[in-house]
Amino acid sequence: MAKSLSFSLIICFIFGLVPGIWAQQQSPLTFTDARKLTLIGKAWNDGPFYHRLDTAAYPAIPRNVKYLATNSAGLAISFKTNSSKITAKWCTSRRVPGDNMTGIAFEGMDLYIRRDQRWQYAGVARPKTHDCSDAVIVEQMASGEKTCLLFLPTYDETISLEIGVDSGATLVPGGNPFRKNILVYGSSIVQGASASRPGLAYPARISRETGYNFINLGFSGNGKMEPEVANMIAPLPMDAFILDCVPNPSAEEVLARTANLVNTIRKFHPKVPIIAIESVAREKGNFDQDVAARVAQKNGYFKQEIEKLQKRDSNLYLISADGLLGDDQEGTTDGIHPNDLGFDRMLQKIRPVILKIFARYGI
Amino acid sequence: MAKSLSFSLIICFIFGLVPGIWAQQQSPLTFTDARKLTLIGKAWNDGPFYHRLDTAAYPAIPRNVKYLATNSAGLAISFKTNSSKITAKWCTSRRVPGDNMTGIAFEGMDLYIRRDQRWQYAGVARPKTHDCSDAVIVEQMASGEKTCLLFLPTYDETISLEIGVDSGATLVPGGNPFRKNILVYGSSIVQGASASRPGLAYPARISRETGYNFINLGFSGNGKMEPEVANMIAPLPMDAFILDCVPNPSAEEVLARTANLVNTIRKFHPKVPIIAIESVAREKGNFDQDVAARVAQKNGYFKQEIEKLQKRDSNLYLISADGLLGDDQEGTTDGIHPNDLGFDRMLQKIRPVILKIFARYGI
Repeated sequence: MAKSLSFSLIICFIFGLVPGIWAQQQSPLTFTDARKLTLIGKAWNDGPFYHRLDTAAYPAIPRNVKYLATNSAGLAISFKTNSSKITAKWCTSRRVPGDNMTGIAFEGMDLYIRRDQRWQYAGVARPKTHDCSDAVIVEQMASGEKTCLLFLPTYDETISLEIGVDSGATLVPGGNPFRKNILVYGSSIVQGASASRPGLAYPARISRETGYNFINLGFSGNGKMEPEVANMIAPLPMDAFILDCVPNPSAEEVLARTANLVNTIRKFHPKVPIIAIESVAREKGNFDQDVAARVAQKNGYFKQEIEKLQKRDSNLYLISADGLLGDDQEGTTDGIHPNDLGFDRMLQKIRPVILKIFARYGI
Repeated sequence: MAKSLSFSLIICFIFGLVPGIWAQQQSPLTFTDARKLTLIGKAWNDGPFYHRLDTAAYPAIPRNVKYLATNSAGLAISFKTNSSKITAKWCTSRRVPGDNMTGIAFEGMDLYIRRDQRWQYAGVARPKTHDCSDAVIVEQMASGEKTCLLFLPTYDETISLEIGVDSGATLVPGGNPFRKNILVYGSSIVQGASASRPGLAYPARISRETGYNFINLGFSGNGKMEPEVANMIAPLPMDAFILDCVPNPSAEEVLARTANLVNTIRKFHPKVPIIAIESVAREKGNFDQDVAARVAQKNGYFKQEIEKLQKRDSNLYLISADGLLGDDQEGTTDGIHPNDLGFDRMLQKIRPVILKIFARYGI
C-alpha cells in the first residue's frame, strides 16, 4: 500500500513535472506562412511566389534558364517582430548541394536585422535534410521590435516557408528596404556560388550595403545572353542593368550576342546606365593555359563589343576584370567561383564604380 | 556478301578508330601511391600515414579527440613533377559534409604550385562520392618541373591516395618547404571550418604565406584543453605553440584548464613562445544575448588566467579577439565558423603579431 502510494506519487510527479520542463525549454511558437509577409528581390510579382520569374510567361527561354528561375536566389522575406526568438519550417526540392557549396547557401537561409542604421547578421536556418527542415534562427534576443530580412536558398527551389515567433509576439509584413531596381544578369557567380550563405551572394550584399535593390538574375552555367533571354529582361522596369555574363557563353557566343543584348535593352531603356563587367579571372587558369587563354579571349571579345557600342552609347560602362578577385589567387572555392573573400574583393572594386555612375544619373 | 563486307569494314573502322580517339582524349597516366611521396604537416611521423597523431600512443585522450586525429586536416603531400596534368584517385570514409562546409573542404583536396617565390593555387580535386573519387586537378600546364603541395581533406579521414601524372613524366618526393614547427592547438576553426577548401584553413594559409610549418591540431568541437590532451601535446618538439582553444570548453573549463595547459607545456619547453588567442566573436551572439555573454565570459576567464601566468612568464603572449573577424559581421558561415573572408581578416591581424614574436626569438 505504501509502496503503491509512493509509486503513484512518483508517476504524478513525473507527469506533472515533465510538461513543465518541456514548456520551459520549448516555449510555444506561432507560425505564419511567409506568403503573408513581404517578398523582396523579384523583378516583378507575377508567377509562383518563390520563383524569381514567371517562366510560364516566357515559353521561348531555354529550359535550363526556366529551371534556374525557380531557385530563390536573391529573394528575401521582409518582416517585423518583437519576438525574442525567430524560427523557420521550410521545404525545398530534394536536390543536394554540389561539392563547391555549403548546405546553408544551397538550401538554407540567413537572417539580418536592422540595427544602428545597418543590416547585421542575426542567424542561419541550417537545413537538416534535403527537403523539409526546421531550425531556430536566433533566440534570446533583447525586447523591442526588430526589422528583419530573411534571405532564401540560393540554389534550390523554396517550396514552402513558415516563420515562427513567440506566441503572443507580433509578426507583420515589412516594407521593401531597398530603393530603385537594378537588375544583375549573369552566371552562377551572380546566383551566389560560392558564397557561404545566401545573404553573402554579391547582389544581396551590395543591396544591404548601398540600399539599392539589386535583383538577382544569375543563372548558374546558363547566363549566356541568348536572344530569348535578352527579350525577357529588356522590358523589365529597371533603373540600371549590370551585365556580368561573360563566364558562361563561349567566346563565339560572347562575340555574337553581346551587342544584341545591349541593343535589346536599349529599345526599352534608351538612357539607363548599363554596366558591363568582364569575367573574373578563373584561378583554374593560373596553370591551365587553355582555361587562361579562353577567359582572355572571352573578355577580349566582350570588351571589343562593348567598346564598339560605347562609340554611340554614352550610358554604357565597362568594368575590367583587373583585380576583381585580388592578386593572391585565394579568392575562389574551386578555381571558378568566388568564395566570400573573392566576393568581398569584387565588392570593394565594383561598389564605388557603380555608386559613382548611379550618382551621375540621380539614381 | 557486299553487305557483309561493308558491315565488317564498319566494325573494323569503329574498333580501330575508337581506341585511337580514346587514347587522344584520355592520355595515359601513371599513378603513384602518395605514401611514396613526402607527407608534411604531421607533428611527428609515427602511426597511420594519413592520421595527424598516432592515437594508439595516447590511450588516455578523449574518444572524440582520437577520432578527430584521424581527419587529415593540415596534412599535405609534397612532390615534384614535370607532367602537364595532375590527377588523383582517393578514398575517404563514407561521412558526408555538414551544412556549413563544402564537399571540397570536407573530403576534397587542393593543389598549390610554387611560382615566382609564392605558392599559387593550381586546382581542386572535387569529390564525386562520399567515399572514393577520382578527379583531374589541373591539366594543360606549360612544360617544366613543378614543385607541388596537395592539401588533404580537412574533415574526413584520408584512407588512400594515388597521384596520376602523364605516362613518362617524372614524379618524385618533394622536400618540406616549411621551416621550424609551430603547433596550433584549437577547435573546428583551427581544423578548418568553414574555409571553402583545405588549403584555406588558416594554419595552411599562414604556412604558405610565412614559410613556417604550422601544424594543425584543431579538433572540431573538442579543443577543450583536457589534462590528457595537454600531456599529449606538451612534449612535442615544437618551436612555438599557438593556443586557439577558447571556443570549445565551457567557461568553467577555461578557468580550470588554461593554467594547466600552459604549465604542462612549460615543463618541456621552458622558454618557447606560447601565443594564446582569445575566441573570435561568435556572430551568433550579435543578437543572441546568451551566446554573447558566454563568449565574453570565456574570453574574460582566458585573459585573466593568461595574465596571471604572464606575471612570471615573459614568453607567454595574448592576442585579443578585437577585430579578429572585422566589424561588419559578414565573416562567418553560420555565426560560429569563419568563412574565407573571416579567416583572411584573422590572418591580417595575427600574422604580423606572430611574425614579430618569432623574430624576437630568432625563430
